[in-house]
Amino acid sequence: MISNTWSLSTKDFRKDVKLKETLFTLANGYLGVRGNFEEGVPQNIPSTKGTYINAFFESEEIKYGEKLFGFPDKSQSIVNLIDAQSITISINDEKFSLFEGELIDYTRHIDFREAVAHRNIHWKSPKGHEFKISFKRLISFQVKELFLIDLEIESINYSGKLEITSSVNGDVTNMVAENDPRIGTSSAQSLQVSGLICDNNFSFISATTNNSNQEVVCGISHKTNNTVNSRANKKSKSIEYTYTYHLSPNEKIHLTKYAVYTDSRRYVTPLQENKLLLYQAVNKDFSDYCKEQNKYLNNFWDNADVLISGDDALQQGIRFNMFHLLQSVGKDKFSNISAKGLTGEGYEGHYFWDTEIYIIPFFLFTNPNLAKNLLEYRYSILENARNRAKEMGHQNGVLFPWRTINGDECSPFFPAGTAQYHINADIAYSVIQYIEVTDDYRFLAEKGMEMLIEIARLMYETGHFRRDGYFCIDAVTGPDEYTCIINNNYYTNALTKHLFVNTEKLYHKLQELQPAALNTLNAKLNVAEAEISNFKKAGLHMYLPFDDKLQIHPQDDSFLNKKLWDFKNTPKENYPLLLHYHPLTLYRHQVCKQADTMLAHFLLGDEKGNQQIVKNDFDYYEKITTHDSSLSTCIFSIMSNRVGQYQKAYDYFMNTARLDIDNLHHNSSDGIHSACMGGSWMSIIFGFAGMRVKNGSLSFKPHLPDKWNTIEFSLNFKGRKIKCSINKDLTSFTLLKGKPITVQLNSEDILIQ
Amino acid sequence: MISNTWSLSTKDFRKDVKLKETLFTLANGYLGVRGNFEEGVPQNIPSTKGTYINAFFESEEIKYGEKLFGFPDKSQSIVNLIDAQSITISINDEKFSLFEGELIDYTRHIDFREAVAHRNIHWKSPKGHEFKISFKRLISFQVKELFLIDLEIESINYSGKLEITSSVNGDVTNMVAENDPRIGTSSAQSLQVSGLICDNNFSFISATTNNSNQEVVCGISHKTNNTVNSRANKKSKSIEYTYTYHLSPNEKIHLTKYAVYTDSRRYVTPLQENKLLLYQAVNKDFSDYCKEQNKYLNNFWDNADVLISGDDALQQGIRFNMFHLLQSVGKDKFSNISAKGLTGEGYEGHYFWDTEIYIIPFFLFTNPNLAKNLLEYRYSILENARNRAKEMGHQNGVLFPWRTINGDECSPFFPAGTAQYHINADIAYSVIQYIEVTDDYRFLAEKGMEMLIEIARLMYETGHFRRDGYFCIDAVTGPDEYTCIINNNYYTNALTKHLFVNTEKLYHKLQELQPAALNTLNAKLNVAEAEISNFKKAGLHMYLPFDDKLQIHPQDDSFLNKKLWDFKNTPKENYPLLLHYHPLTLYRHQVCKQADTMLAHFLLGDEKGNQQIVKNDFDYYEKITTHDSSLSTCIFSIMSNRVGQYQKAYDYFMNTARLDIDNLHHNSSDGIHSACMGGSWMSIIFGFAGMRVKNGSLSFKPHLPDKWNTIEFSLNFKGRKIKCSINKDLTSFTLLKGKPITVQLNSEDILIQ
Repeated sequence: MISNTWSLSTKDFRKDVKLKETLFTLANGYLGVRGNFEEGVPQNIPSTKGTYINAFFESEEIKYGEKLFGFPDKSQSIVNLIDAQSITISINDEKFSLFEGELIDYTRHIDFREAVAHRNIHWKSPKGHEFKISFKRLISFQVKELFLIDLEIESINYSGKLEITSSVNGDVTNMVAENDPRIGTSSAQSLQVSGLICDNNFSFISATTNNSNQEVVCGISHKTNNTVNSRANKKSKSIEYTYTYHLSPNEKIHLTKYAVYTDSRRYVTPLQENKLLLYQAVNKDFSDYCKEQNKYLNNFWDNADVLISGDDALQQGIRFNMFHLLQSVGKDKFSNISAKGLTGEGYEGHYFWDTEIYIIPFFLFTNPNLAKNLLEYRYSILENARNRAKEMGHQNGVLFPWRTINGDECSPFFPAGTAQYHINADIAYSVIQYIEVTDDYRFLAEKGMEMLIEIARLMYETGHFRRDGYFCIDAVTGPDEYTCIINNNYYTNALTKHLFVNTEKLYHKLQELQPAALNTLNAKLNVAEAEISNFKKAGLHMYLPFDDKLQIHPQDDSFLNKKLWDFKNTPKENYPLLLHYHPLTLYRHQVCKQADTMLAHFLLGDEKGNQQIVKNDFDYYEKITTHDSSLSTCIFSIMSNRVGQYQKAYDYFMNTARLDIDNLHHNSSDGIHSACMGGSWMSIIFGFAGMRVKNGSLSFKPHLPDKWNTIEFSLNFKGRKIKCSINKDLTSFTLLKGKPITVQLNSEDILIQ
Repeated sequence: MISNTWSLSTKDFRKDVKLKETLFTLANGYLGVRGNFEEGVPQNIPSTKGTYINAFFESEEIKYGEKLFGFPDKSQSIVNLIDAQSITISINDEKFSLFEGELIDYTRHIDFREAVAHRNIHWKSPKGHEFKISFKRLISFQVKELFLIDLEIESINYSGKLEITSSVNGDVTNMVAENDPRIGTSSAQSLQVSGLICDNNFSFISATTNNSNQEVVCGISHKTNNTVNSRANKKSKSIEYTYTYHLSPNEKIHLTKYAVYTDSRRYVTPLQENKLLLYQAVNKDFSDYCKEQNKYLNNFWDNADVLISGDDALQQGIRFNMFHLLQSVGKDKFSNISAKGLTGEGYEGHYFWDTEIYIIPFFLFTNPNLAKNLLEYRYSILENARNRAKEMGHQNGVLFPWRTINGDECSPFFPAGTAQYHINADIAYSVIQYIEVTDDYRFLAEKGMEMLIEIARLMYETGHFRRDGYFCIDAVTGPDEYTCIINNNYYTNALTKHLFVNTEKLYHKLQELQPAALNTLNAKLNVAEAEISNFKKAGLHMYLPFDDKLQIHPQDDSFLNKKLWDFKNTPKENYPLLLHYHPLTLYRHQVCKQADTMLAHFLLGDEKGNQQIVKNDFDYYEKITTHDSSLSTCIFSIMSNRVGQYQKAYDYFMNTARLDIDNLHHNSSDGIHSACMGGSWMSIIFGFAGMRVKNGSLSFKPHLPDKWNTIEFSLNFKGRKIKCSINKDLTSFTLLKGKPITVQLNSEDILIQ
């Protein structure tokens, strides 16, 4: 699908229809519409029609065979919304379909600088009527509620009547997949139509979820510049407009469909708001929106683009990923970025630690405000996390949910869910990183410090000083879900140490910089200086498992005592292992789903600063890691670079960079892997460019793969914008904005001015 | 409720109705009927009407919020059957009820030597009509399908019409309790009536479960010796017989109701069989069945009774327990003994390790054939266990289900279910114990050895030789469910060592005694001598965690590194902890639900033979054990005796012996605790009498509580029957059957002849 590194395009319509629906999804962080064909597909073609609003969800009672104390009661699932995609075209008794008649020419593409999806079709009907048809669609980054379809039909040889029927339809369902834990289980019919208004050229459908009582309204309107008869047909759950044209050869018709989505989580009166927005929207033409869109995208790429010369497939892949990240990321306080973005219902639209560890870095260094919004979302659910901590038997602090939309835990399988207490440390890591990169002490004073203290409190209470004086954390699960409920997970302990140490540091920094704000916080949270010292003490005495004999960090206390997995006798079709082995079988072996100890090394450097140990760990864990999680290969790519295994760095990276576009995990048809997309950016910047932030400054240790000539990218750092240009022989930095700054290149200081 | 140590009796009808329904349950191991009032209770009185057949179950899809590989698909739940208990009495417009009119006298009792439940009622109706009413009921130990109610009514002052309506009713439901994991969750309506036959004085209702497709038939018939008008009323799901009498003062009427239950698990044509059995049954009178029953019970008590002089409450409690064990234990190949016997639906009628570790000893030493049947049940599900092993990723061997009725695992929460691999070792322990006590090498050759080898294979494959040469078992859960999925659980490892060592020993013993049978088995299972040596090697190198500093056995590798539970700040109402804390909170602390390491010490003696270490362990674990499981106090009672803490031994025992009769856990209304009942017998024999079997012979170290004068009991051992009489100063043995034998008393040999 490469023809241009700035776009996704295809000339085939028949293959992988459902996958392409994902890849050609348009979204703006609020609203997402899968790339379904307006005219539909034949019944036998696998397809998931989908329209989603970020954070709009239905909730159901979670069923347990055996429900224990503290198990979450209610699920949360992103809802497939009222459909506004459908447009059919009829010429007398023939209906336009790619799957019938003759397709003389077909191209479909999205240019990432435009964010407009095109389908250009040259089609001859079974009876020989020939047309050129162009569909364009756009989801506005300026008016987040707006979805547009622009249709142009040119008759080549047809003369006669042509009807376009365009609908808005509330009769929609969600996917159901009971046996794959990665998809989630919810009942099919989540929305009930609660109102239909058909007012001349403006129609509105309201629909409400059964249990969570959230309302969505979809309003549509059309503009056409041709003489036309139109009629509206109001059904029980849908409204159809039919436009009748009389067409001669070489004549063109043109129709623009405006769809506006509003929801009750953002608006008290979503119907009123919808009307206002729709009435406003129709004042501009499709081309006006294209211009605005282009402007928005240009600004984005100006900050975000990573240029890789010498590898077009990769160049396309990485841009595709960044484009989807921009499409997926929530830009208001209600929403975050879900595991599948707004491209599908996989993982029920939930937010995970993926946000902080895999995605925030990209935004933080390119569009820090978007990163900030993601952290503000976490702050907005602090009360939920406080309540959850209580429910989990803690006296103090907050425990963030492992998976959630509205802030309440909804992970039904706690060993690989709630037990992942590292979510708390991950969020703290991200807050600390945000401050380090932006110097935004106002955020720290207003929100960040409260989060850090409350997180530290919980982790302090969860752990304890063992009889040998070490601070230990028992009965948690680390990132590697193939070993659950263990003691002293290296990752969790290392990140918690980082949390404790930096909470103390930032607390005292704030004391210096904003004493009044800190006093307010102290009073609000009832913080005593002794508590802060305790955090420091726990940080200093944090137990980090180390095996003297093997000179490696065990993933947890017991990891090295377990049996090695018999990889040789594991057939290829048994991967991912979680779909073929009982959890106990996995827990009993040294086998990893994903980077765990290596991830800690990436995020923190190894604790002992000893290169050899990092290499030992890399060698040890690489052999036993299956990368069954899409969060794994990017970290191994980065760490391969770190330990000088450059070919591996490249190979792992190629697995990451085009994971969705090439459907490497065979499940991208259910949605993109947003964390992996963030990981591909990290692989370049932290991996090949070897960038790190340490002690408040940037450092680089670049190493390009043989195939590449140059990489170029920009970074936002402490108010500056720095352009980095790396080729085989030379690395150069250009200060595009802000004051001069010193960075390290291969351990040497360089002043950029 | 003590008036006689041989019976359960009460003069109160109003208090604890539901509890008494449990306590007055009659059963014979096949059929169980709760002690409901024939005439019913007012709607506002909590009551569970119940009739059950052992191993008759309904099955439903288990719902999981997140279903992982190998999670059981289907539940199994004992079914509340067609009701044959109901009999109402009307005098004109008045209906007999204990809750109306005046109760002049009331007694209810069961004599454990008779197994007949009596209610003697002297009642005056609101309008002043006075009657003496006697209900007797019996579930036959001779004809297992037969349930009888015998009703006698004497008019004191009434003259006129009296109607008795007796029914059989297929419109029944199961209890539903969603939030207590100890009860189980199943939908209410399990049975659908599939046929009604009303044939003069014989009526039959057939009903079938929705999913498991099991059929039950209940046939009823009546005999009355008075002149009477009778009519039958056939409804859609029930049949009622109404008998109309004309009564004068001092006149008596008498009605016997015969109910026969047959089911499709035992009979291919349960209706035909039911008819045959019912036609036969009515040939005998109630008094005939009473005589048979009495004979059966006399024989039972002759072997089983434990006489305790000096403590009537206790004497009654222990007899009540033994009586209920006899009532509960399955006596055919389809059934075992469920956690609640046949007294309720708690734990869904499942069979657990309770059978082998807590219940078999009682039967083994008193009625070895019943113990054998329980082991044969396990043999009968060997194929299910073989399949489950495969599903759990094992190449060889069998993995017995943690909870089951038909042999398939149906534990939905694997950390405290399937992960309890010790079930395998428990069953092996019981097989070995059975052979040791009975010398039944024929059973060993035919079934036992196959079980041992297959169990050993699985445990050998589950564990592994660690790099230090020890054989370790990772990722299992021991008996203590407050610490799940841990490595080297002392109990599991110790019992697996016992399994390995004895499998090797018995294998070679069989080679000697029954070489032909062993050859057949070798061929069937493809056993190689090397495999048997491997078991031995693993047994010899079994890792048994020991802490040098504390000189105790840690419950598992990580146990001693965990935080101590804050008992001081745990309010009383927070027990049992599992209903008030999330599992992770429990897993993170040193807190035990029940005996774990101490149980291993009881079953095996401590591995090092070091009295001091057993004492250390006792002191350590006693402090942190909540006894939230009813399986705990009996073991602590036994071990208190072992370590010489005699007052504690008594206190723990009193908690055990009258747990149900005094409703100490506040949940006996949902059913008895059969394992605890077995435990109370063990507490006396293994605890106060200090009995053990070691190296094939019996030994005793008795110590009576101050309050007791004497205990007397009989034991079956290697074909002998030995009467043991222990008082404060003297212990004497009498050989009632069999050849002379030497036993040890306080380490001295005594020849009994």
